[in-house]
Amino acid sequence: MDWLDQIKWDADGLVPVIAQERSSGDVMMFAWMNREALARTAELGEAVYWSRSRQKLWHKGEESGHKQTVHEMRLDCDNDVVLLRITQQGHEPGIACHTGRHSCFFQRYENGDWQAVDPVLKDPESIYK
Amino acid sequence: MDWLDQIKWDADGLVPVIAQERSSGDVMMFAWMNREALARTAELGEAVYWSRSRQKLWHKGEESGHKQTVHEMRLDCDNDVVLLRITQQGHEPGIACHTGRHSCFFQRYENGDWQAVDPVLKDPESIYK
Repeated sequence: MDWLDQIKWDADGLVPVIAQERSSGDVMMFAWMNREALARTAELGEAVYWSRSRQKLWHKGEESGHKQTVHEMRLDCDNDVVLLRITQQGHEPGIACHTGRHSCFFQRYENGDWQAVDPVLKDPESIYK
Repeated sequence: MDWLDQIKWDADGLVPVIAQERSSGDVMMFAWMNREALARTAELGEAVYWSRSRQKLWHKGEESGHKQTVHEMRLDCDNDVVLLRITQQGHEPGIACHTGRHSCFFQRYENGDWQAVDPVLKDPESIYK
């Protein structure tokens, strides 16, 4: 049985994917993959997601240069979530977020509100030029 | 504006949630919350998910004793994914997975297949008695 057939794809043929930075353990981002995206990721050793908004394959970093080298791929107990252990390329420290921040999870719950608590490392206008 | 209204709930009124162990940085599990589950989580300081299979609130650990103390809640840049920083209670080291393993992400991609690479820490039969 093919490893791709073992994934329980959802009704849209997608699987949720968590990208975790190997060096720090930080959860960097969350995205989706279809079968082709996961196959390409394994083939390239770089994260290729499925963009639900653009409805096409999204080789992370193709515009920004902030590619993700994939060291390890894991699958959960229900075979319906993938975890990637990555190195975030193109900037030091790594920038995974389109806002120019290290991680997409930069808003922290505090006293009944979400507060942006992590710094912008690079102006998004200079990332996507 | 209420902090719960800032979440972009999906068509089913749910948001994906990643639970990360604070002490180790390990990604423990992935689940879903509805509005009530997230409100309860904030109120209790313990993870309360929405079980899609059982279609009801699921106070993690209510059967197993493996509750999750929530230290921090984060929201991503698109306001549609939540990250919890937790301590996994009830066993040392923590057991988040119903298979009796530390993390639900115990299957690693190796040479075209998924291999279970992490040990079972406790027999599931003795967890759910």
